[in-house]
Amino acid sequence: ASKDWEAKAWERLHAQIRPRDSLGRLEVIAARLAAIKRSLTPAVGRKIIFTMAGDHGVAAEGVSAYPQEVTAQMVGSFVRGWASINILAVHCGAAVRVVDCGVASDLPPDWPVLRRKLGKGTANIAVGPAMSREVAVRGLTIGAEIVQDAHLKEGYLLFGTGDMGIGNTTPSTAIIAALGGKPVRDLTGRGTGIDDVAFERKVRVIERALAVNRPDPNDPLGVLAGVGGFEIAALGGAVLGAAALRVPIICDGFIATAGALVACRLAPKAADYLFVSHRSREVGHTAMVDMLGMRPILDLDMRLGEGTGSALAMNIVEAAAKVLVECKTFEEAGVTDTGH
Amino acid sequence: ASKDWEAKAWERLHAQIRPRDSLGRLEVIAARLAAIKRSLTPAVGRKIIFTMAGDHGVAAEGVSAYPQEVTAQMVGSFVRGWASINILAVHCGAAVRVVDCGVASDLPPDWPVLRRKLGKGTANIAVGPAMSREVAVRGLTIGAEIVQDAHLKEGYLLFGTGDMGIGNTTPSTAIIAALGGKPVRDLTGRGTGIDDVAFERKVRVIERALAVNRPDPNDPLGVLAGVGGFEIAALGGAVLGAAALRVPIICDGFIATAGALVACRLAPKAADYLFVSHRSREVGHTAMVDMLGMRPILDLDMRLGEGTGSALAMNIVEAAAKVLVECKTFEEAGVTDTGH
Repeated sequence: ASKDWEAKAWERLHAQIRPRDSLGRLEVIAARLAAIKRSLTPAVGRKIIFTMAGDHGVAAEGVSAYPQEVTAQMVGSFVRGWASINILAVHCGAAVRVVDCGVASDLPPDWPVLRRKLGKGTANIAVGPAMSREVAVRGLTIGAEIVQDAHLKEGYLLFGTGDMGIGNTTPSTAIIAALGGKPVRDLTGRGTGIDDVAFERKVRVIERALAVNRPDPNDPLGVLAGVGGFEIAALGGAVLGAAALRVPIICDGFIATAGALVACRLAPKAADYLFVSHRSREVGHTAMVDMLGMRPILDLDMRLGEGTGSALAMNIVEAAAKVLVECKTFEEAGVTDTGH
Repeated sequence: ASKDWEAKAWERLHAQIRPRDSLGRLEVIAARLAAIKRSLTPAVGRKIIFTMAGDHGVAAEGVSAYPQEVTAQMVGSFVRGWASINILAVHCGAAVRVVDCGVASDLPPDWPVLRRKLGKGTANIAVGPAMSREVAVRGLTIGAEIVQDAHLKEGYLLFGTGDMGIGNTTPSTAIIAALGGKPVRDLTGRGTGIDDVAFERKVRVIERALAVNRPDPNDPLGVLAGVGGFEIAALGGAVLGAAALRVPIICDGFIATAGALVACRLAPKAADYLFVSHRSREVGHTAMVDMLGMRPILDLDMRLGEGTGSALAMNIVEAAAKVLVECKTFEEAGVTDTGH
């Protein structure tokens, strides 16, 4: 992102008819968009959310409240427009594209999903690596290629990410534990809603995954291959792809932020193009956000995934762009300015 | 608001295809809308923001960074569509209606504003009451009548409030100090951006206003008349009017929340119909929100007013309504439910 364009944006924002900085983080977002797009008119235009789906071998350890079949069932709901993400995306004017990164079952051929299966669910991280390093690279590449196609072939100008995958808070928690070095217990949440017994099991499973795979915090690709997931790889790749294209991307909650974190460890400058949509109620999310050095746009106690936070945050990001472009300056409007 | 309809809404929200409570406060908003509208399809439909403008005699004490003429200049910008509120309201699909509740100067006759002048600015609260009790009642009535007309004659289904008035953080701070009994210094902020000297002056002016007017915390009308403002009265009246019509209303930041607080002290049940749009960076706002027992929808470090927070929050409120109405249940979608 361009510091010059960011400075130009601040000059215009401060000249607009309101007290200095009185739109707070909306102005920070606007200045970041200007830096990303190297423009004082960073039009948001067409918006799209990528909901990356994948299954997890670790689900066999009983870490989720839901059976694995629900991943495919929810993908079916997404393609029919029945789920929370569909409603919120329509509301915010964004398209939804569902990507099968590795759902365990074969999805019906008539479902309009991007078919990028890396396998029928990852291997169980509690007993070995989720995938090989080569597959992890393929997962990253898939995510990057999907955003590239959407931008270059279809003209999408703002991306959002989202996830679907029963059991995927477990690898996401393992990723931050591996990258951040905090105790697993402090980072582990209740996911879709597990009880105390299942929670204790989940903590032990993640501790075992770390003990078995011994991920090196200085090797983010190894962390992703060892304790990650197919959709998490694609979620990270989407961030890398967006950054390479200089297009802003908004990541959803716990799982999508785990992918974004891997991306930013692989390529720290990718963070310039990333916005965190909301603060998830999953306890480990705040640790992730702190590791990214970012503050989420929304804080609504959400913990769903699917891209629901990205959809709601897109509205705020688009609003910020419009303020920068459209609000008059004191001089233009003939309003007395005191520079405060 | 209806507890029965709220319970029915929770039943439907919990049956929808996502883990229980995973949309967090979005679901809380949806359930509140169902309670307000006594319906499981609480359509938001047409949305309007009332930007109430007024001047303040206390501006003569040097409590603002801007001269009083800016109130009328900004009203001119609102009617021309040049200001932050115009851009955000268009973005969120809401109309903006500007109300002259008591701007000090005569506004040009061709400006499309609702003309409800209660005076050419209030009297200086540092030396006596802002207005008589009779005028305060008229101010409340004006606000209530405006929302009533918009609902009954024009079919608006969601209201937002906003303010414009140079100096109006001073009476708003005096109102919470009077109603909440906290020390003025802890509730006083920098408004549009005053320096240390002006800040100390502002604290002393508010303390003087309280000493001179001796507002009784158990007499909210007396508080409003003594240390309030014309636009603050109308902002309170809008909340009372919305509650009487059983229509949801979203209040903006510091000044609009002060008006809403007066309304809820006059008629506590009005709070059932009220949403607080955002947490203002004005220090006293959190005290107000705590007194209302509410949590703001957004927290973006904004402190502008005009209705800008209401516009952004409208998008979230509308999204909540759509989730309740449109998202399928586990049964409807054929997704395996575990009730978690």
